[in-house]
Amino acid sequence: MFKLILLSKEGKKFFVKDINADYHCQFGFVTAADLKKAKPGVEVKTNKGESLVVLKPTFIDLYQKIKRGPQIIAAKDIGSIIAETGINKTSIAVDAGGGSGALCFFLANICKKITTYEIREDFTKLLEENKKFLSAKNITIKNKNIYEGIDEKNVDLITLDLPEPWLALKHAEKALVPGGFLISYSPSIPQVSDFVAALKGTPFIHLKTKEVLERKWEIEERKIRPFTQMLGHTGFLTICRKM
Amino acid sequence: MFKLILLSKEGKKFFVKDINADYHCQFGFVTAADLKKAKPGVEVKTNKGESLVVLKPTFIDLYQKIKRGPQIIAAKDIGSIIAETGINKTSIAVDAGGGSGALCFFLANICKKITTYEIREDFTKLLEENKKFLSAKNITIKNKNIYEGIDEKNVDLITLDLPEPWLALKHAEKALVPGGFLISYSPSIPQVSDFVAALKGTPFIHLKTKEVLERKWEIEERKIRPFTQMLGHTGFLTICRKM
Amino acid sequence: MFKLILLSKEGKKFFVKDINADYHCQFGFVTAADLKKAKPGVEVKTNKGESLVVLKPTFIDLYQKIKRGPQIIAAKDIGSIIAETGINKTSIAVDAGGGSGALCFFLANICKKITTYEIREDFTKLLEENKKFLSAKNITIKNKNIYEGIDEKNVDLITLDLPEPWLALKHAEKALVPGGFLISYSPSIPQVSDFVAALKGTPFIHLKTKEVLERKWEIEERKIRPFTQMLGHTGFLTICRKM
Amino acid sequence: MFKLILLSKEGKKFFVKDINADYHCQFGFVTAADLKKAKPGVEVKTNKGESLVVLKPTFIDLYQKIKRGPQIIAAKDIGSIIAETGINKTSIAVDAGGGSGALCFFLANICKKITTYEIREDFTKLLEENKKFLSAKNITIKNKNIYEGIDEKNVDLITLDLPEPWLALKHAEKALVPGGFLISYSPSIPQVSDFVAALKGTPFIHLKTKEVLERKWEIEERKIRPFTQMLGHTGFLTICRKM
Repeated sequence: MFKLILLSKEGKKFFVKDINADYHCQFGFVTAADLKKAKPGVEVKTNKGESLVVLKPTFIDLYQKIKRGPQIIAAKDIGSIIAETGINKTSIAVDAGGGSGALCFFLANICKKITTYEIREDFTKLLEENKKFLSAKNITIKNKNIYEGIDEKNVDLITLDLPEPWLALKHAEKALVPGGFLISYSPSIPQVSDFVAALKGTPFIHLKTKEVLERKWEIEERKIRPFTQMLGHTGFLTICRKM
Repeated sequence: MFKLILLSKEGKKFFVKDINADYHCQFGFVTAADLKKAKPGVEVKTNKGESLVVLKPTFIDLYQKIKRGPQIIAAKDIGSIIAETGINKTSIAVDAGGGSGALCFFLANICKKITTYEIREDFTKLLEENKKFLSAKNITIKNKNIYEGIDEKNVDLITLDLPEPWLALKHAEKALVPGGFLISYSPSIPQVSDFVAALKGTPFIHLKTKEVLERKWEIEERKIRPFTQMLGHTGFLTICRKM
Repeated sequence: MFKLILLSKEGKKFFVKDINADYHCQFGFVTAADLKKAKPGVEVKTNKGESLVVLKPTFIDLYQKIKRGPQIIAAKDIGSIIAETGINKTSIAVDAGGGSGALCFFLANICKKITTYEIREDFTKLLEENKKFLSAKNITIKNKNIYEGIDEKNVDLITLDLPEPWLALKHAEKALVPGGFLISYSPSIPQVSDFVAALKGTPFIHLKTKEVLERKWEIEERKIRPFTQMLGHTGFLTICRKM
Repeated sequence: MFKLILLSKEGKKFFVKDINADYHCQFGFVTAADLKKAKPGVEVKTNKGESLVVLKPTFIDLYQKIKRGPQIIAAKDIGSIIAETGINKTSIAVDAGGGSGALCFFLANICKKITTYEIREDFTKLLEENKKFLSAKNITIKNKNIYEGIDEKNVDLITLDLPEPWLALKHAEKALVPGGFLISYSPSIPQVSDFVAALKGTPFIHLKTKEVLERKWEIEERKIRPFTQMLGHTGFLTICRKM
């Protein structure tokens, strides 16, 4: 959807959709003629003489601009899901609840295909919008309740970000391949402990429950220190495997 | 290389290379005849009557068994690199120093192709062994010093796990596409601050420096608590982008 | 200074200085007559019929109300200083720079006596005000530069919260008893490493450098989780002992 | 009990009980004559010519040598209790269960007096031994179950390290002064949530629940980094106040 990024010296990004029209920003405008000739890594000038570097938008540039609901799964937690499961271009995944898609679009970027279940109609629309925005082709969005069933078979990974993840357990069991991963993401401990308790007597093995913390550092001359404010908590990841 | 995994009730995994021979383990042996008929998710029995579940090895199963040198980059840090960069099946990556390949094999699992630079001959051999073990096809292993140059062009991601990462900066600049990511992983702060200082005057923007902490929890009836021992530190990730 | 605390049902505290006058607050007023008869743990009523519980102010109540400058040492770090040194009612301490006194007043609450050095006149005045407010008797406030010398002898603990703590090292050496503790608190790593490097060839042993992190939890029915926001960093504590 | 500490160059401490006899250690022996003349901060020589520095044992030196049971409350948590409550030489405290006394002896070092309840006879003996070792005078050790009652009145602080802390709530209520602190220390979340739930309808306000994490750093030339291993968890502190 976005054709170009124009980057200012201060690192500000401007996303250009239409290269057939002049692009206006706080530094003046770049002509359509210049936009059409623009090449990644080369500078263009605005009418005010400001230089902007042209970049080709990558997945991560677009991803960071998708529309989001209030509570999305953090990048640190998504990275952890990928690192724990080793999913790749051959993997088939199922995700619920879709929300704004922060998780399913990231997984789609790596997997062969993914289906996301979302019970709310407004979120389903948001998912469709974001899918279009990202030009994602390997995502199926279903306005369905995953507690009532999973249509897919031979799934390699199921991710649950749900208030009562245990209600999806028996459906996940049917949908997953032997050795497939089931990961539940919950903000609160009672959800975690009820989910783990529900695993008893199922073919799922509880591999681990963990939380991931990220600490950002200021690195500037002698000011070398962690930032004062930190994200203290997002959610707990419970990682299971169908055996 | 490995054809099957046999999984015991306690979660112990046995890796079977040759299905044309009986497989012996602590629970007795499984006959070659049974191994040839084995299907994922179905049980086989040992001569002692023990049931073992058959699984098809996935990337993560094999990855967790590659031969490792003393200091490898942790899964939590690999997940973070993937989450920060959004690499996918179209990405071209370069990695140095290769070490035992913990990072480059994981990236290879997601990327289109990756080249890893390793100066030590013994580690180069280890990389070749692990490459064979994982049946990885999209990895090029070079027994070369990355401080002396990077042959690849149009690279999307370069990861550095080196004692003096700043010595690779000018080569990384030439190899990366505009917008490409450069990530340095260092255990000690002076390496981080020297690397960040060396970015001045280059086309690289310092996006962030961070550390990732992982906290595992025990979830068992009323014993719901973080584990007593924790990995307190691996390394700092410094994430830059060529602009 | 404060004679009474009046506590509302919601936990709001009102500090009463003068029990010879009616006390007005958002819940109405309590008469001087009632204030004079007030006993800790017993309720008084405002003219509007609101019940307020009477409490005797303790050190911690008053301490939490002292006037503060922008950067004060956190309670978690103060607790750590006390736990590492085992100071008690026989201990003699020296502190610099005094700042608003968050550290020296807390130590004064436990020690026999403490002297605080503060180079800025405005902070010295603030320290005097806070000293009066807390009715602290065992504190000497000096408007002096500790880099130029420490007058006290036989000191058990010296705490430094200074931009260049190494400049106080030779004075600390003279002032401390054998076995006495020297603790430096610094926000940035280069301060820590320069201070530790300066210890070489002195009678000080570097026991440890550490940071203390505090994670608050929400505990309410099924909402049992760490709070989203967290104080990610205050400072590093370097703990030394004169041997 | 211990009269002197002899400190080697490498920081090894030898505790001398009897200065009327020669003291033997790995560096040879120091004569009784030399021990009797020994002064803090001055060196003595062994018969082998090794120099040892004489130190007067302080509370923290002795405290670090008390006999301990398997699970003691960590220094970081003790520091936090002191920092949250502002206890001082006028404070009266009650502690249960006493265990080996790690908490009650530390509090005794600061408070006016403390009583510790311990139900097990073997631990009560251990407490008595440690009390003698520390020459602590302001501690009363009771071989009693605190669930059955607290004899003390007008207590400023009660600390509970018990499997079912809620069973002591009604006794704590009677024993504490208005405004007094009640702190429960529990390793597991269900203990925390049951305790907080039990506070409803009592005069206790739940101020906060928190955990304290300590991260030690290696500071040596360019090796400036957190240590690899870290204590990941001890317990949760729930801090309440009687209002």
